[in-house]
This record gives sequence, C-alpha cells and structure tokens, in this order.
Amino acid sequence: MARNGDASGEDTLISRYFKPLATDPGAFGLTDDAAVLKADGFDIVVNTDAIVEGVHFLPDDPADTVARKALRVNLSDLAAKGAAPAGFVLTLALRETGHAWLSEFARGLGEDAKFFGCPLLGGDTVSTPGPLMISITAFGRVPAGKMVRRLGAAVGDRVVVTGTIGDAALGLAVRKGGAVAQALADDAASSDTLVSRYRVPQPRGALAQAVRDHASAAMDVSDGLAGDLAKLCAVSGVSADLEVDKVPLSIAARSLVERGMIGIEAIVAGGDDYEILCAIPDNRFEAFVRDARSAGVAVTAIGTIIEGPAKPRWLDARGRSIVLSRTSYSHF
Amino acid sequence: MARNGDASGEDTLISRYFKPLATDPGAFGLTDDAAVLKADGFDIVVNTDAIVEGVHFLPDDPADTVARKALRVNLSDLAAKGAAPAGFVLTLALRETGHAWLSEFARGLGEDAKFFGCPLLGGDTVSTPGPLMISITAFGRVPAGKMVRRLGAAVGDRVVVTGTIGDAALGLAVRKGGAVAQALADDAASSDTLVSRYRVPQPRGALAQAVRDHASAAMDVSDGLAGDLAKLCAVSGVSADLEVDKVPLSIAARSLVERGMIGIEAIVAGGDDYEILCAIPDNRFEAFVRDARSAGVAVTAIGTIIEGPAKPRWLDARGRSIVLSRTSYSHF
Repeated sequence: MARNGDASGEDTLISRYFKPLATDPGAFGLTDDAAVLKADGFDIVVNTDAIVEGVHFLPDDPADTVARKALRVNLSDLAAKGAAPAGFVLTLALRETGHAWLSEFARGLGEDAKFFGCPLLGGDTVSTPGPLMISITAFGRVPAGKMVRRLGAAVGDRVVVTGTIGDAALGLAVRKGGAVAQALADDAASSDTLVSRYRVPQPRGALAQAVRDHASAAMDVSDGLAGDLAKLCAVSGVSADLEVDKVPLSIAARSLVERGMIGIEAIVAGGDDYEILCAIPDNRFEAFVRDARSAGVAVTAIGTIIEGPAKPRWLDARGRSIVLSRTSYSHF
Repeated sequence: MARNGDASGEDTLISRYFKPLATDPGAFGLTDDAAVLKADGFDIVVNTDAIVEGVHFLPDDPADTVARKALRVNLSDLAAKGAAPAGFVLTLALRETGHAWLSEFARGLGEDAKFFGCPLLGGDTVSTPGPLMISITAFGRVPAGKMVRRLGAAVGDRVVVTGTIGDAALGLAVRKGGAVAQALADDAASSDTLVSRYRVPQPRGALAQAVRDHASAAMDVSDGLAGDLAKLCAVSGVSADLEVDKVPLSIAARSLVERGMIGIEAIVAGGDDYEILCAIPDNRFEAFVRDARSAGVAVTAIGTIIEGPAKPRWLDARGRSIVLSRTSYSHF
C-alpha cells in the first residue's frame, strides 16, 4: 500500500482507514512496500476477483456492502477450492476520497476481514475518473497438493450445490425495477432478502474442509449455475444430467417461479450466487452431507455426472430437456 | 481468470491471449478458479501495484509497453525486497477487447513474464467505461525471515540508489510537450531515451541478492526519490544528509540540469524511477559495490543516514541546504 502517494495524500488515507485492518504481522502495519505471507508448509491458493461499480454493485449500494462483496467473492472461491483464508491485498481505484464513503467501506471491510479471519496484507490505491473498482487478491492455505480443482468430476458423481440459487440475480432485478420489482412491490421482506443476497454474498468457508475431504471437483458459482457447471464438466471431460426441480430456491424465488413471473433460466443463468458447486463421488455422498450438516451449510444434489462431451442437460420433472438460450452472465 | 464471462466472451479472450503466459503448473493453464503457489520453504513476498491510463501511462502508449510497465513496477518492488519472482496475477479493466491492442498487450506481458521468470498464475478481466487499469499482484520468494524492510536503516549507513534518477519524470514531460520537450526538440535520441524510461522501467532483479545480503533497509523509488527516502527514514526512526551533486543522472537529464532547463526538484521529486533505494552499513559497502558490479547494476552512494527525526536534508556542493517544495508525486 505504498506507491502513488505522499504523506498528505495516499499515506494518510491508508493509515487512517486501512492500517487498522492490517492485523497480520506479515503486513508490517502497511508501512512497507510488500507483505510477507508465511506458507507454514501449506500450499498457497491464490484467487483474484474484481468488482466494478455499475456491474457488480450499484452506485448507491452502501459502501460497507461494496467492501464486503469485494472480499466475499474471493472468499467464496477459496472455500470452493478447499482453502482456509490467509489474507488479502486490495487495489482500490477511487474517483474521490470522500471521508464518509471510505470510512464505511473500511468499516465493512474490517469487520469481514476479522469475521472471516482474512487480514489485509497490503495493496494500492489509485485515482480514476471512471467507475469505482475494487480488485482483491486473496490467499488461502491448503495441505500440499490438496487444492480442489474444477477438473476431476467423474461419471456417477452427484452434482451438488450449496444454499439457494438465483437470489442475487433476482435481487439485482429488484434494484433495476421492472417486472420482478413490480411483482414484489407488496412484499418488502422478499425484496430486501433478494437485494441483500445481491449485495452481500455468503461465502461457504465452513464447507471448505468437507469439500476438500469429499469432492472430486469444485468451483464457486459466480456467473450462473448452468454456465459454471458447463465449465466444470468441460475441463473434467464429462457431461451431466440436471433436474431443474431439484435446484434449491429461496421462498421468494420459488414464489416468483410458481407465479410464472420468471423462468428457470433467470435462476440457473443468473449469476452472482457465490455458492459452491461440486461433484461428490456416490460413496462419499452420505459422509459429505453429514459433514455439511455439521458445518451448518445446506447442500442439495441436483443431478449426476454422465459420460460424453455434450453440454450438461437440464431436465424438467417429466425428464424433458429444457433449452437455455443463455447459461451465464457475460461482461463482453 | 474465471469469473465474469462465458465461453463466447471472457473465456475466449483468456484462452487466446493469456493461456500461453500461464506456464507455471500451479496456474493449471488458467482453467481453474484459483492458482497454487508453492512456497517450498521460502517466505512469499506479496506486492500489489496498479497502473491507470492517463496517470501511469498515456492513451497512445504502445500496448506492449503498458503491459511491461504493469509487470515491471511490481518486479521492481520484489527486487528491492530481496525477493526472486515467483509469479503474478492480473486484473485487467478494459473498455473494449480490440484484438490488436490485446494481442500486443499479451505479447509484451508474455515476453516480460518469460524474461523475468515470473509466470502468470491467474487473474480477472472486467469491463469498464472508464480508463484502462491494470492491477498486478506479484509474488516473490525469500529465505524465511529475510525480506528486506524499509525499517532498519541505521546511523552511519550509506544511502545508495541504482541506475539514474529523474529520467522517467522527464520522459513524461517530453510526452506532455512544454518546456522540456522544446529543449530536446533537436535531440531525438535523448527524447526517445527519456520516454522509454517512462514507458518501460528496468526492474533491478539482478541486485536482489546483494540487497538481501548487505542492505539494512530498502525500497523501490516510485513516487520520487526525496519522498521515498523520507518514508524509509521515518519508519527507520532516522534522518539523512544527501548530496544533490551525487544523485546519478543520465546524460540527457544532466544536460537539462546544466542548461538550467530544470531544477533538481524535477529530478528528486519526479517519480516513476523504479530504481532501488537502500541503506548499506559502512562495513558492507565495499562488498555491496562488488556484488552490484558482478550483477551488472550501477549503484551510487548519495549520502549518509544520520540521527534524529528531521526530514532528510538535501545539500548542494557547498553544503547548503536545498528546500524542496514537493518531494513526491501524488494522485490525491
């Protein structure tokens, strides 16, 4: 967190807002150019995700939720890889350094860093006339050779997801107004829940150990379940049959589907879920479910890995294939 | 390098341009959500620096030099910390994905990654309507506990810098037109040299071992020698006397100073040098100079660490103190 500033500018910003977050001795209180990350015999898992104003968060989202999302999208990846958080570095591209915004941002970031045991190690702040952007590189530790890959799903494995799917995409739809917002106009509780799922993902760190112990392959669901599953299958050289009716939905999402307000595509191609998608060998499934229950994380089997190079098939309750016109969210 | 895209967008961009750079087995060919970084018993040194269009590079700078600068500003930090490069992750905020620009960007990045032995491990691409931004987090390895800190400079140590100072700031001045550009209007060779120093820093990785073996404190000079030295002194609890005449200048910079076109402030507060500044105990100085010579890196002693909390003093040839109105470049 050292470059691009002087004592009257960036350094003050850093010492005021971010130094309190640099609790790891390897961060040197952000007074150095670099940080030291001790591996302690583990492999270091490295993940980078950036969030951009207007894309991953909205200009009027509270600053503390922006910070939480920036960190949590990375923690979600670490959890899916079976890694325990070790720390993170932050690049903050700011238009201006308003005290109120930065103060709330740092508060949210600090609370989450503490809660998830993932201290700030360093970073860089730069000014931009463009949208706010927060890029975080997060580090985790796994026993040597034990990072859970996307590659590895095998024929017969159960396809499992955590939590519920589609809420965040619906939350964004609520924020954008339109049909979904109108459908929920009289249901503030559902609207708030969905918006909160969009703003503040719930990384499944509690499940990291169970994923590492049982999953043959795993990734976090960030761009849409259907598209992300297709990627996992492609790199594993397999396909999958999914049962749409088994996709876990929140009460709010289920109500919208049942009322015909949205189709299943809005759920499985929505993006921003930050749940874990994994393949669990059949003979590990019971143990996995037991460990997930101990960890307090809901898991649901939604299908099976099958042979072949075909794209995963989504089947309705009568076994008919559903055609998705899109499978994920794309920025390009 | 996995989020925020689908097979027709980001994934294609990644596999076309960046997969060839992911030569480390821990990068999994960019087919996973995260990378594995092996520590192999070393400490991992982590550094993050971002560069922004219009600030650290200009919109018409060649794409390959933008990539090189983005990586090299990070390699410069690793070198100053005594670390050997281990890899890096990249966040790329793009307005558009023009083939020509991306292709040149990836070529420059790939050549440098190979040359400096620092492979791409992963990253994220996002779209932005704002200026291009490239944020890199680079990793290095040092023997456990051996990262060279800013803290540690002791009274009597020699203050040493590598290479020449001020060229990059003058190169930016050339690009911006004005007095410096006019003064060099008939000297294309000098102009080109200075601009090239602005566009493509020369990280001093060859000196990392000598810094680790001999320096009591070190940092890279990125925001201006005077300001950066003040930071090193402040965190070490010391001051320094510097001899302005000893600051190493290129032929082009010296000529501008001697003709009175620029003052010394433009040199020592200019920024973008990416040279190493370090403190070398007097009894290690000869050995350090010898090792620097073996490494092929020019080093120059420019002053001495002294007691006290005062800001470092810059003295002219007659020992008179020079007052600097600014000591570094600031974005805020």
